[in-house]
Amino acid sequence: MAQIGIGIVGGGYMGKAHAVAMAAVGAVFDTVLRPTLEMICTTSEAGAAEKARQFGFKRSTSDWRKLVEDPAVGAVIIASPQETHHDIALAALGKGKHVLCEKPLGLNAAQSRAMVAAAEQSGCVHMAGFNYIRTPATQLARQIIAQGEIGRITFLRAEHTEDFLADASQPGDWRTQGRANGTMGDLAPHIINAALALGGPITSLVADIATVHQTRGGVTVSNDDQSGLLCRFASGAMGQLFVSRVATGRKMGYAYEVYGTKGSLRFDQEDQNALWLYRAEGPEARRGFTKILTGPLHPDYKAFCLGPGHGTGYQDQIIIEARDFLQAIHEGQPRWPSFRDGLMVDQIIEAGWKSHEGRCWVNIENV
Amino acid sequence: MAQIGIGIVGGGYMGKAHAVAMAAVGAVFDTVLRPTLEMICTTSEAGAAEKARQFGFKRSTSDWRKLVEDPAVGAVIIASPQETHHDIALAALGKGKHVLCEKPLGLNAAQSRAMVAAAEQSGCVHMAGFNYIRTPATQLARQIIAQGEIGRITFLRAEHTEDFLADASQPGDWRTQGRANGTMGDLAPHIINAALALGGPITSLVADIATVHQTRGGVTVSNDDQSGLLCRFASGAMGQLFVSRVATGRKMGYAYEVYGTKGSLRFDQEDQNALWLYRAEGPEARRGFTKILTGPLHPDYKAFCLGPGHGTGYQDQIIIEARDFLQAIHEGQPRWPSFRDGLMVDQIIEAGWKSHEGRCWVNIENV
Amino acid sequence: MAQIGIGIVGGGYMGKAHAVAMAAVGAVFDTVLRPTLEMICTTSEAGAAEKARQFGFKRSTSDWRKLVEDPAVGAVIIASPQETHHDIALAALGKGKHVLCEKPLGLNAAQSRAMVAAAEQSGCVHMAGFNYIRTPATQLARQIIAQGEIGRITFLRAEHTEDFLADASQPGDWRTQGRANGTMGDLAPHIINAALALGGPITSLVADIATVHQTRGGVTVSNDDQSGLLCRFASGAMGQLFVSRVATGRKMGYAYEVYGTKGSLRFDQEDQNALWLYRAEGPEARRGFTKILTGPLHPDYKAFCLGPGHGTGYQDQIIIEARDFLQAIHEGQPRWPSFRDGLMVDQIIEAGWKSHEGRCWVNIENV
Amino acid sequence: MAQIGIGIVGGGYMGKAHAVAMAAVGAVFDTVLRPTLEMICTTSEAGAAEKARQFGFKRSTSDWRKLVEDPAVGAVIIASPQETHHDIALAALGKGKHVLCEKPLGLNAAQSRAMVAAAEQSGCVHMAGFNYIRTPATQLARQIIAQGEIGRITFLRAEHTEDFLADASQPGDWRTQGRANGTMGDLAPHIINAALALGGPITSLVADIATVHQTRGGVTVSNDDQSGLLCRFASGAMGQLFVSRVATGRKMGYAYEVYGTKGSLRFDQEDQNALWLYRAEGPEARRGFTKILTGPLHPDYKAFCLGPGHGTGYQDQIIIEARDFLQAIHEGQPRWPSFRDGLMVDQIIEAGWKSHEGRCWVNIENV
Repeated sequence: MAQIGIGIVGGGYMGKAHAVAMAAVGAVFDTVLRPTLEMICTTSEAGAAEKARQFGFKRSTSDWRKLVEDPAVGAVIIASPQETHHDIALAALGKGKHVLCEKPLGLNAAQSRAMVAAAEQSGCVHMAGFNYIRTPATQLARQIIAQGEIGRITFLRAEHTEDFLADASQPGDWRTQGRANGTMGDLAPHIINAALALGGPITSLVADIATVHQTRGGVTVSNDDQSGLLCRFASGAMGQLFVSRVATGRKMGYAYEVYGTKGSLRFDQEDQNALWLYRAEGPEARRGFTKILTGPLHPDYKAFCLGPGHGTGYQDQIIIEARDFLQAIHEGQPRWPSFRDGLMVDQIIEAGWKSHEGRCWVNIENV
Repeated sequence: MAQIGIGIVGGGYMGKAHAVAMAAVGAVFDTVLRPTLEMICTTSEAGAAEKARQFGFKRSTSDWRKLVEDPAVGAVIIASPQETHHDIALAALGKGKHVLCEKPLGLNAAQSRAMVAAAEQSGCVHMAGFNYIRTPATQLARQIIAQGEIGRITFLRAEHTEDFLADASQPGDWRTQGRANGTMGDLAPHIINAALALGGPITSLVADIATVHQTRGGVTVSNDDQSGLLCRFASGAMGQLFVSRVATGRKMGYAYEVYGTKGSLRFDQEDQNALWLYRAEGPEARRGFTKILTGPLHPDYKAFCLGPGHGTGYQDQIIIEARDFLQAIHEGQPRWPSFRDGLMVDQIIEAGWKSHEGRCWVNIENV
Repeated sequence: MAQIGIGIVGGGYMGKAHAVAMAAVGAVFDTVLRPTLEMICTTSEAGAAEKARQFGFKRSTSDWRKLVEDPAVGAVIIASPQETHHDIALAALGKGKHVLCEKPLGLNAAQSRAMVAAAEQSGCVHMAGFNYIRTPATQLARQIIAQGEIGRITFLRAEHTEDFLADASQPGDWRTQGRANGTMGDLAPHIINAALALGGPITSLVADIATVHQTRGGVTVSNDDQSGLLCRFASGAMGQLFVSRVATGRKMGYAYEVYGTKGSLRFDQEDQNALWLYRAEGPEARRGFTKILTGPLHPDYKAFCLGPGHGTGYQDQIIIEARDFLQAIHEGQPRWPSFRDGLMVDQIIEAGWKSHEGRCWVNIENV
Repeated sequence: MAQIGIGIVGGGYMGKAHAVAMAAVGAVFDTVLRPTLEMICTTSEAGAAEKARQFGFKRSTSDWRKLVEDPAVGAVIIASPQETHHDIALAALGKGKHVLCEKPLGLNAAQSRAMVAAAEQSGCVHMAGFNYIRTPATQLARQIIAQGEIGRITFLRAEHTEDFLADASQPGDWRTQGRANGTMGDLAPHIINAALALGGPITSLVADIATVHQTRGGVTVSNDDQSGLLCRFASGAMGQLFVSRVATGRKMGYAYEVYGTKGSLRFDQEDQNALWLYRAEGPEARRGFTKILTGPLHPDYKAFCLGPGHGTGYQDQIIIEARDFLQAIHEGQPRWPSFRDGLMVDQIIEAGWKSHEGRCWVNIENV
């Protein structure tokens, strides 16, 4: 079987998820290209060695340059802090390595543009790590929309709400400093990507961005706790977005509802194995929202289980993402969402800040 | 028992609801003041007579002036089309009659201001017919917020979504002509009233108002199908509102969610006997949204049933409203929501239009 | 308009519900026959007078014989304790009065048989007060089954669960003494009636009946806290029933699910405005349980509201029951559920006790 | 790192699930003992080789005796048809191999008894493959019960409902022949195991077992489509169980509700990331069922994700099971559920058949 050596930069939450995914993906999807866990990089040599042992990598390093230059590493997964993405990606692409980069691409749209340029010139496969878009239910939602089953979209509401900083008494840390770590920088990318995937391009928006708890443990918070957007899609559809890290009670509130002229859809990642569909057809007295449980007839589900309703989980999304990445490499084609798709998300975020600061509507083409 | 003669202008949907409410309210709440069904007014003499027979009124008329001048009529319920509210209210108040006027008050904020002035000068009781605010669950939500149980409010989302015009092939009629009958004029008042009741005064907003189906049956639609708002409350809390008559699948989507620093609330009128409450207290591993079923411990429920979970319905809200109106008359005090509260809603709507037309944020004090 | 004088025996929870229903039913349903509130009977003269004032009855008494003999009373509603049903019903029927008797009919099947005999000989209208069967959603469920939409029924599960005696420290009272007040006597009738209405006749059963809290406040509890049944319907379908007053957390757990060869249904009275329907038809990848919100297309809903999803409540069921009773009187025909239907329920309960005591299956025809 | 060679008998649905689990478990849980995928056995040499390639096994065979005798294989997972379990298990245990056997153990209680005897004499680790008991939510349910949070259990209802044979026109196959493949043989084990784990030992029961579709494609169906049980636990609690493969609309209806004197629990595998908890404490007007989303504070969740609400899926249960198996081997101790626990389930099934055939209650100690 054809093989490709995987290098992962980052041994935290996402680094582990990608490592597990690469260990499992071959058996799950019977991929043509099989990954080998070549090298992992974290901030210390000892820590990296420990992660290599746990996850089953052959080697480890605390210097990401060694990883991207390692000849056995054919593909690099960037799961390190956001400020490192740009440099690692450019170095890896420069060495002809395929790159899967966690969202958001760069620290800002300028960095992201440079990453897109490098990726598109490189001839390598490049992917942005929007994993949530890969749950079977959300893939099904995209199918339903694409096939016109709910007609023309008229309204889309999407949110990414969590409450990890809802408690005002929680002291500040790196998450409460710097735009990249606020709600627009850290949470908005996933749900903006979903909005674009489901509703198409956004052409204008107005945003309101707020810091709810101004200080934490005596230190001023320098980034945003919640953000609201009102927008229009190229199709003319209206949109409302909301992102929060102080939405008390919400744990993984990546949720959307899409109204169309013939039907509508609802989804909430906290109940990720169900998609709610309403169709304006059939006898009116029998209509209502149908709770469709994901099953083997829905995208990518049956690799995990032959029975409907048994359900996939968070880790499974990352396995699907790993399959996409390997398949793209095998086919030699970038795969959605590419770095360019990641840049589109960054542009929306940039427009959001511009709108907030100018207290005005902003057209996206003017970003 | 003390009695008061009731006159109702309007024999349609809301006229009937008020008539039934007045027939039942005495037995339900054992009110001190008991209503007698004196006179009903609809557009034709024959129609009015027929409604009087059905609903049990003593007399009928097709001239609302006769009704407001009738000496046996002590209180007037205005349930006729919106464009008639102003004149009837002023006439009734001029005759010293107490007035319960269906929402929204006037055709525009100017009319509403005149109605408020007349009402406040009259010494009569005046109420705006925001019935949904009276469901036991929403009354409970207000209590929970007022008692600080969810802390300081940081975000409020509210919607009133229905789909009665979602079908593009449905021909236009009076509902598709005139601002008063669009979503901002007809649907927004209820939910804006809820937003104010739950979140306090709104100080600024930006709105986007849209006609989704431009023509119906060859005739141009002159009013709006959906409206989105982003706003700020006086408290600093952020808000998102949405109103639609083309939200395919939604039947009575009067729904809100309120996030606070210590908890949060969710409600949907389609499941009106439940309020969802999250409290950030107790062991973290046992937290979650609690579905509180309304019962006799919650406001106004036990008059309908001594058992929890048995549930109240739409008609019961109108009975509660009738009780409030009778009690206000008995006590000689205006009762929330008064005409002035109705005017506050109209001001938000006016600001919404101003924002939409100017494509800008609007401060409410500048309306 | 034709009128009929109503007499109600009982001024408690159900007496009030019937009084309110009779006050509202004419306006709600535009009934041909209109009720007048003639007389109410409770246990004391003063109490009865007070109830008459509150509910709007012309006269009152503490002697139910006076009520059933009153010439102005044409129909009697029996909402007094269960041990009084038999005598009042026989006296009323003997005087040619139509009778609506709260469930269960008599204290035991023998009393119920006598009531059925008297009712059927009298030529009067007789109805058993199974109000829950009248919610629009449950009426819809019956329609769906009758029209074969879910095919042949294969399994039916039904429960009536509440928790009003779940707390072991709650002292005993009349509810904890006497079979008539236990779960088989007091709660089972409603849900057995539903099981029969949805699934058809029950032909055999095995039951397990239990007292969970043996003593309360030092006094021995003499009746049952929960009961489970396994049964077969005449159709061959299998059934499971459960009734409890110690089902912690359940408030109005009148719930059922019905599986058929082509579909299935689910309902829970705690969410009485929704019926869940699954149909094994259409593309498999789009199937799921559909939440049908009750609306004007469903039985008896539109008298309460012209908008779907606005919802009916507990009191509305009693209004529907009042309409049924008046219509039956107007048509001179007994109406389902008649006293005979009530007797069928009592027979199941009797069989349940026989099965429990004999620890064996019991055939219903052998009761 | 210590390693153990894994051999899997069976390359179907469950064989794959176990293979993927063994590939991922080390990285997920950082297990002390690490599995190596040594050998897989399926019915043909070519098929086995193909599965070995897909799943990453070193070798393959079509003869399970070669697998259990292979010196590199230290632990055997039996995921082959039920009729093969007994022989493979005895052979493997005889060779000193640790065994994880899919449920149910043997074809009947006699076989299961022999397997238990062999396992307990062998000194090897033995586990029965009840994977569903390992979802974080169900583990949490067990904790809540064990810690007395819902008090003494008074009632437990459990079901395992699917609809894979609901369609009467579906032709028969191996699944419609033989008791082992009917609902009592194939579906009941999982949910009986859950009932025992949550409610403790069952002491008596009465069962009704039915074939709904007597013939399929002209061939007589020889096993059962659905089964209902009424039972009592050693604690005195009452129980109701139901198992069906014709429950139209249900896909993975492994569900239970447990009522206790202080609270209650509800779970449905179709929504496996939520556990519903009611506690009879705190202000009564704030009580209700709380939807607890699984998160890192709940058993075994955080190995999959550090964020609450992100969710685990079917495959993750098998990974947890793999961890349990490896840990048991490492510690040299059998681990719940052992073969003996599997036997207890078989005894309930055997009692169910005896009850059904005798149309009587059966005491479990008399089986």
